[in-house]
Amino acid sequence: MAEAKVLSGAGLRGQVAGQTALSTVGMPGAGLTYRGYDVRELAEHALFEEVAYLLLHGELPTPAELAAYQGKLRSLRDLPQPLKEVLERIPSSTHPMDVMRTGCSFLGTLEPERNFGQQEHVSDRLLAAFPAMMCYWYRYSHHGVRISCSSDEETFAGHFLYLLHGKSPSELHSKVMDVSLILYAEHEFNASTFTARVCASTLSDMYSCVTAAIGSLRGPLHGGANEAAMAMIQKFASPEEAVRGTLAMLERKDKIMGFGHAVYKDNDPRNEVIKGWAKKLSEEAGDKVLYPVSEAIDKTMWEQKKLFPNADFYHASAYHFMGIATELFTPIFVCSRVTGWAAHVFEQRANNRIIRPSAEYVGVEQRAFVPLDRR
Amino acid sequence: MAEAKVLSGAGLRGQVAGQTALSTVGMPGAGLTYRGYDVRELAEHALFEEVAYLLLHGELPTPAELAAYQGKLRSLRDLPQPLKEVLERIPSSTHPMDVMRTGCSFLGTLEPERNFGQQEHVSDRLLAAFPAMMCYWYRYSHHGVRISCSSDEETFAGHFLYLLHGKSPSELHSKVMDVSLILYAEHEFNASTFTARVCASTLSDMYSCVTAAIGSLRGPLHGGANEAAMAMIQKFASPEEAVRGTLAMLERKDKIMGFGHAVYKDNDPRNEVIKGWAKKLSEEAGDKVLYPVSEAIDKTMWEQKKLFPNADFYHASAYHFMGIATELFTPIFVCSRVTGWAAHVFEQRANNRIIRPSAEYVGVEQRAFVPLDRR
Repeated sequence: MAEAKVLSGAGLRGQVAGQTALSTVGMPGAGLTYRGYDVRELAEHALFEEVAYLLLHGELPTPAELAAYQGKLRSLRDLPQPLKEVLERIPSSTHPMDVMRTGCSFLGTLEPERNFGQQEHVSDRLLAAFPAMMCYWYRYSHHGVRISCSSDEETFAGHFLYLLHGKSPSELHSKVMDVSLILYAEHEFNASTFTARVCASTLSDMYSCVTAAIGSLRGPLHGGANEAAMAMIQKFASPEEAVRGTLAMLERKDKIMGFGHAVYKDNDPRNEVIKGWAKKLSEEAGDKVLYPVSEAIDKTMWEQKKLFPNADFYHASAYHFMGIATELFTPIFVCSRVTGWAAHVFEQRANNRIIRPSAEYVGVEQRAFVPLDRR
Repeated sequence: MAEAKVLSGAGLRGQVAGQTALSTVGMPGAGLTYRGYDVRELAEHALFEEVAYLLLHGELPTPAELAAYQGKLRSLRDLPQPLKEVLERIPSSTHPMDVMRTGCSFLGTLEPERNFGQQEHVSDRLLAAFPAMMCYWYRYSHHGVRISCSSDEETFAGHFLYLLHGKSPSELHSKVMDVSLILYAEHEFNASTFTARVCASTLSDMYSCVTAAIGSLRGPLHGGANEAAMAMIQKFASPEEAVRGTLAMLERKDKIMGFGHAVYKDNDPRNEVIKGWAKKLSEEAGDKVLYPVSEAIDKTMWEQKKLFPNADFYHASAYHFMGIATELFTPIFVCSRVTGWAAHVFEQRANNRIIRPSAEYVGVEQRAFVPLDRR
């Protein structure tokens, strides 16, 4: 074995594994920037498609570029018939992330990336098709309906909500979905993005990289936090009950999802944005339970543990108010994050060396083979 | 951003990213060991199923354990009908690695790993089913035949060759396939295995980890070397032509696949084993071209560049003599390496911390948002 350097701590925490021009996480002044822009400004002023373009192309689009990009995405929304037939064969009990992973991989067999000159097209295709992939399977397996995968909705967020509910969303719902997609689009070398980059470093194709990333995002330590937060929030019927329940969970040292962060130390810059929109949705819905319960848990966690809510916590109630089934929360994350993943694959390919670390051997010493009849 | 340590060199080369008890690569005395056993001894004396058991369970099986394990694998060989229907929808022009990736992912929607207590079962299932996945699609898409996915062949290697050719293999072919599967089963923190471990570190399921690893193995810098070697060897009609052609390629600084290695410095311990078997197969086939051409390239590379053939180089002719289409070389690698991948997932789960490195930011400085109408 070549001499290898033992890193302090497992999980490569705090170790630089490569370069990126895509985002900064936890820098003073702006907790999260995409290509230099504060994510809070993007969430306030930009459309998700502008942010996707920014990540993939490096600059915000001009009006003409945006119109062309939106037009291209609209033209790529529908699914090929064989993919629909595959989705129809996936049971309703399947984890929706397994559906996204399989749909992505299968699309790669029908419309392969033949060379890296097609990388932008394949990324656009995946982004455009993911909402249909998710909704076609969901509506077929759960409601027995073969939905049309096209819509007249101009925006990605509107199209997604249209496919899910079969009708045009309100302006407020469209806006909140758009903001949510922006907040989840990119986050530096998180585990799923790093998975995509390791895969890209073998010069594999875009579908392999995104399929691999979906597999990592599926893990409960990564993408599933907003689902877990929702499950917890729904257990409580009132703020008072939520306070008592949270204290009891802390007492039992239960893991409470949606709080704290591996990189952010004081707050998650995405939280203030989605929290504001969750409040608006709550008011619109005349809700007297879910949002107050969420706030009560939030307040209790801060008082007891000085732990802040991360991006996932108020996303739970925001999605719920938009009528989205909890099991679809993580697939929405895929629909957004595919932009960041693809942009990272572009970066890795542009300056590649295969990612092949070493291991510290902790196994048995070398030993002689023992034939089967002497075991 | 937390303070991050910049590693020397890209690709995490020479950096320890975790611990393993599975294998050593490039240690003095034994170039490659699995759980302490020299791979050359395993290839000479053991059956692939013994090696799979060794990797997954830590020790070579007793005769009773081996019989039970082989029986279990035999019982898991067939594919569910919906998976066959999915494979029938994959075009014949598809890269067979995309078939393996998709088949693995889809099987995960039908037979999910519900908890980590099922990890051994799911690993056995994937190992047992991969030959059928590959051969069912290949024979259907290329020959229009719906093959039966079961066989009376006792061993994994025999079963695989039976499905591929529709008849029982010779003892020699069975033995060489077995040896080949042993040689490819495990290789420490290579890129596909590291992909599986990053995915596993989010506590995702086994199918996600293996699907992700297949995506990485698909890359031409990783799994495709034996295919590339075959393509090159087949260009030459005689050893003399091969010498001239190799010299010309070196002159042009072409990349010559199947030589040298990222970790091994003097030789690849797997080469001497497969080279010997390739020679036997060549003699059996009365070959006067392929093996002599291979040897001529080998000799020229050593004389000119002091570069040694790695595991992939003589695998090319060995597989060819067994009647295996070149495009199936890398999928065979999957059928073998799934044992190593699964064993690494077990290890990662047993002592886990999410793998989340940092990045060095090389992008633009923070900048103010510019509204669409001012771009």
